[in-house]
Amino acid sequence: MKSGAVLAGVLGACADSGKVNDSGPRTLGDIPSPYGQRSTYEKSVRYTNLSVTPEAGASRTPLQDSYGILTPSSLHFERHHSGIPTIDPSQHHLLIHGMVDRPLVFSMEEIFRLPSVSRIHFIECSGNSGREWTTPEPTVQRTHGMLGCSEWTGVSLSLLLSEVGVQSEAKWIIAEGADGCKLHRSIPMEKAMDNIIIAYAQNGEAIRPEQGYPVRLVVPGWEGNTHVKWLRRIKAVDQPYMGREETSKYTDLMPDGKARQFTFVMEAKSVITFPSGRDKLPGPGFYEITGLAWSGRGLIKSVEISIDGGQSWQEAQFQEPRHPVALTRFRLPWRWEGQEVTLRSRCIDETGYVQPSREALIEARGLNTRYHYNGITAWRVSSDGSVQNAYA
Amino acid sequence: MKSGAVLAGVLGACADSGKVNDSGPRTLGDIPSPYGQRSTYEKSVRYTNLSVTPEAGASRTPLQDSYGILTPSSLHFERHHSGIPTIDPSQHHLLIHGMVDRPLVFSMEEIFRLPSVSRIHFIECSGNSGREWTTPEPTVQRTHGMLGCSEWTGVSLSLLLSEVGVQSEAKWIIAEGADGCKLHRSIPMEKAMDNIIIAYAQNGEAIRPEQGYPVRLVVPGWEGNTHVKWLRRIKAVDQPYMGREETSKYTDLMPDGKARQFTFVMEAKSVITFPSGRDKLPGPGFYEITGLAWSGRGLIKSVEISIDGGQSWQEAQFQEPRHPVALTRFRLPWRWEGQEVTLRSRCIDETGYVQPSREALIEARGLNTRYHYNGITAWRVSSDGSVQNAYA
Repeated sequence: MKSGAVLAGVLGACADSGKVNDSGPRTLGDIPSPYGQRSTYEKSVRYTNLSVTPEAGASRTPLQDSYGILTPSSLHFERHHSGIPTIDPSQHHLLIHGMVDRPLVFSMEEIFRLPSVSRIHFIECSGNSGREWTTPEPTVQRTHGMLGCSEWTGVSLSLLLSEVGVQSEAKWIIAEGADGCKLHRSIPMEKAMDNIIIAYAQNGEAIRPEQGYPVRLVVPGWEGNTHVKWLRRIKAVDQPYMGREETSKYTDLMPDGKARQFTFVMEAKSVITFPSGRDKLPGPGFYEITGLAWSGRGLIKSVEISIDGGQSWQEAQFQEPRHPVALTRFRLPWRWEGQEVTLRSRCIDETGYVQPSREALIEARGLNTRYHYNGITAWRVSSDGSVQNAYA
Repeated sequence: MKSGAVLAGVLGACADSGKVNDSGPRTLGDIPSPYGQRSTYEKSVRYTNLSVTPEAGASRTPLQDSYGILTPSSLHFERHHSGIPTIDPSQHHLLIHGMVDRPLVFSMEEIFRLPSVSRIHFIECSGNSGREWTTPEPTVQRTHGMLGCSEWTGVSLSLLLSEVGVQSEAKWIIAEGADGCKLHRSIPMEKAMDNIIIAYAQNGEAIRPEQGYPVRLVVPGWEGNTHVKWLRRIKAVDQPYMGREETSKYTDLMPDGKARQFTFVMEAKSVITFPSGRDKLPGPGFYEITGLAWSGRGLIKSVEISIDGGQSWQEAQFQEPRHPVALTRFRLPWRWEGQEVTLRSRCIDETGYVQPSREALIEARGLNTRYHYNGITAWRVSSDGSVQNAYA
């Protein structure tokens, strides 16, 4: 590295020491604060495109400004079906009932006393990247921003189900939220007894209202709306309830007219976050290509990047340690010579599943759905350095 | 678990289904927001005890309310020597000069273009737990709150030093901040070429002003004030500068009158965060003892907990995966029978170093310093459930 060869494109522009500004602060600054805020110079926000019923709305994480694998709680995407309820935790209870031996009700204080678990997991809306099927959007925030990754802390659902004594006829649970529409999802008992967290904390502090305060489900690797927010009730039942979110929504109509239903797992997927749509590279030279990969089935095993439109692929490096069912940051050093190029990433998870091309995904699933898109995204860098969605 | 034996102390109090409040929200709630805030029901804040010159002040992380291993940026402790400067990133530059072949100046835009790295590390003030030497404080926030753990993203200092070409005579670097006092620390070249990050992001977004916006050093495992904030200058030199923060401060006067100087590494340490000082257990029954352990030398290998005043020790469980030079969350299920007990934790790091007792630490170091305390802390639970610092 002593030669400076790798970074010369950047460093060539840096060697003018006349740029040093020595007029920095010479006075006392602000004093310590009880609860911090970001710099007023930082403006990155969730993208919201609100309809006439904004309470059934969504916001998207600014992935183009993301660092590492964690999503700040203040920038974690939101998706609501009847808005964010205001819940006083001292009045909130969780009921576990149905086909169980001992129905129980928990206050939040009681939940806090139970054995806890913390894990880092992604949450992705089933509708994330939904417009990539037909009319791709311009930025990575809009194509992939219904995605976040946090450290979640709470109680294992399996522990509580063991305590209430699930009866052998109970094959599913219904999880219900305390929002105005009482959103609910049916989840197979096998998953309920596996690795679901009843989460009351996110990224080291109490979960935020828009993420389900005071308590939500975190259902590792499964589609976002199964992670029921403002959780008030879990009922053990013998069959799914076929509610709105598993019939009119989140079910994919296949080319043969059959319905692809209860496709809970979010399959392996990746996206390049830099450079991405609407970026403008200032000129030829060194850049680091970086992005995120994830799989609902466990660890990401490898990410490959193509800078020649998919003809050849290079292995990217990972931020370590990788966490299973979490965002995985990948990076690849790149020297741009100023020509038009198309950048793609594709990932492979630990089951050997390979992220499909957009064409292969459409061939297999048709165009009758807006859900569960996990195809490859392509960014075209023009010779002037501007970047756009290559499928747009 | 079907018997409910482990959790009966909690669940016995939960079995009254008359407590279910079904008057929850039936209306539409709030709509998605650009940048989120926590619930208005959450009041946990940094503890600040400001002096007549509050700009040379500190705040402490509320560890009693911490979850998992991450510290929210809004609650990460602060320690300033001349307050928090307001810095416009478009005007900020980093100069690397001194005994180098090619002095360079970087704008923030240029720094963002370079190869990046993200790692989770703790930062602990050298003065954390300083009053445990003589007059222990009442709460874990006040005893251990000058401690935080974040995912930091930035550029490897070693990469930039390689690019400028450090000359063989240069044995140290001086890192200088842009705050009013131009705080600076001398750091040996061996560490500078090892694993230091020039960090511009914390927990997935731009670093906060009180943590050094737009760019700081993160010096894994070393005392907090070496992690120079608002970094403006790195100079390669042949000897340390013996500045204020390494002579009148952060140097320990030993019993024999000699000075223990440049003791950069924060040795292995742990503390129980629940139950801790000023908690009040509501009654006998099941509780989870939990806390944090860390070592400047790498991974925490084990944490043991004593509930009998140090006569016997039980192995705690870890949140996995553990990260090196990061906070490590430990947990131990516990049934309190209502008797007076004293709780202690002690950790062992991967080098085999064992966290010392308070008595052993005082024996070795004397009482002439307020820095580098890493002895065992003891919490006494009285028979009425109240908890206090056993050394107070």
